[in-house]
Amino acid sequence: MIKSAIAALFMLSATVSQAGGEFRHIVMFKFKDSATPAQVEAVEKAFGELPSKIDTITAYEWGRSESVEGKNDGFTHCFFVTFKDKAGLETYIPHPAHAAFKDIFIPILDKALVYDYTAKN
Amino acid sequence: MIKSAIAALFMLSATVSQAGGEFRHIVMFKFKDSATPAQVEAVEKAFGELPSKIDTITAYEWGRSESVEGKNDGFTHCFFVTFKDKAGLETYIPHPAHAAFKDIFIPILDKALVYDYTAKN
Repeated sequence: MIKSAIAALFMLSATVSQAGGEFRHIVMFKFKDSATPAQVEAVEKAFGELPSKIDTITAYEWGRSESVEGKNDGFTHCFFVTFKDKAGLETYIPHPAHAAFKDIFIPILDKALVYDYTAKN
Repeated sequence: MIKSAIAALFMLSATVSQAGGEFRHIVMFKFKDSATPAQVEAVEKAFGELPSKIDTITAYEWGRSESVEGKNDGFTHCFFVTFKDKAGLETYIPHPAHAAFKDIFIPILDKALVYDYTAKN
């Protein structure tokens, strides 16, 4: 039993470290020079609240740029949102919580880049 | 024993679905119009071989663009590379296997964007 439980743990660990067809939605933002730190923090906070409001989001993470090679084209923020499938994203885009979030970031946005893909190894 | 094993499985599952400070290295490519499908596939294959050649890579996935909103700025390929920490990326960049990989993609590259961040929720 202990051996099989340990084997199961390793199998799960191997499974989750592999890309399993999740649908990824990468969002990068560069804010206007006029954006205040408080406005930027409000966007970070509001994006982080979307996973609790839109149930097709299965995973969420983000991070400020820590560019090593300086090839980030001015983007300072990246949000990495996961859905089970493309339909999950298609539910998210017109969702009222997502629409309300736009009202927070659009006024201070300089530019955005969005890249969607199905994860594979 | 069975209950504790099941509990351990759920705990591991919860742990891995949370961002735990991994260092993410996002690479987006747009290839020249003159790039052939075979050349593009060679880049996809060669990037996928780097995790077996550079041991600071802890996870790897990629996907061709499936843009829903058309905001991908022409990028057709995204490679999502994970390191334990920033030092892992700093080992990767000058690694001979990475340098050799450059010889494969540089000749057909139109543009690239690279974004590095420490994952958090």
